[in-house]
Amino acid sequence: MTKDRTSELVRAYYDSWKNGMASYDEARLRAILAADLKFEGPLAGKLTSADAFLPGLARFVQSVKAFHMRQEIHAGHEAAALYDCDLTKPAGTFRFTEFFRVENDKISAITLVFDATEFRKLMAG
Amino acid sequence: MTKDRTSELVRAYYDSWKNGMASYDEARLRAILAADLKFEGPLAGKLTSADAFLPGLARFVQSVKAFHMRQEIHAGHEAAALYDCDLTKPAGTFRFTEFFRVENDKISAITLVFDATEFRKLMAG
Repeated sequence: MTKDRTSELVRAYYDSWKNGMASYDEARLRAILAADLKFEGPLAGKLTSADAFLPGLARFVQSVKAFHMRQEIHAGHEAAALYDCDLTKPAGTFRFTEFFRVENDKISAITLVFDATEFRKLMAG
Repeated sequence: MTKDRTSELVRAYYDSWKNGMASYDEARLRAILAADLKFEGPLAGKLTSADAFLPGLARFVQSVKAFHMRQEIHAGHEAAALYDCDLTKPAGTFRFTEFFRVENDKISAITLVFDATEFRKLMAG
């Protein structure tokens, strides 16, 4: 696995949704993500398949008005991205980080970290 | 700036506090961090010096019972780290990510991201 291929996969991942639902491309995402994707995030907890992950991503993407990549790091079969999104729900700009692992030419693991304070308030009511 | 040197600086940064106040080494931290460090985090906001950053780090470190590095990525003069800390206040295990930039053989920028929900509750009293 080369750094360039890891970079390509991570870029393709964001290209598949970063412009909101107009860009959301589930078929492309399924080609990029391992079927047994391991995902972990503050609200979703631990998920163990692309099938479990994609509905939550689609819900999030419905809220994305703009995407701003701030820092991207790739090394071997690992990568990390720091980005800001302008969202409608909750309204405002929020910062996210994702850490990736790549195996067998697909993204095999994503760990998402963000400050979920406002998201929890919205969910609570 | 080599990847190895970036890796050394990031490791030295965590070694300077990851074992709690017993390991907290302000002189070593000042040798690792640029005096005009640019820091950004969910609670502290934007800071522009090591002087402004270190008191908050020291307060955090007082709460650190255990530190678990989960994923570290270094490339050129940039790095990212994903780690979990067992804390006393708030009590529990919390996940953090930090993105680094290195310039002139020092860490020049740190962007910290974590879910501050429980930390805000504690601050609110």
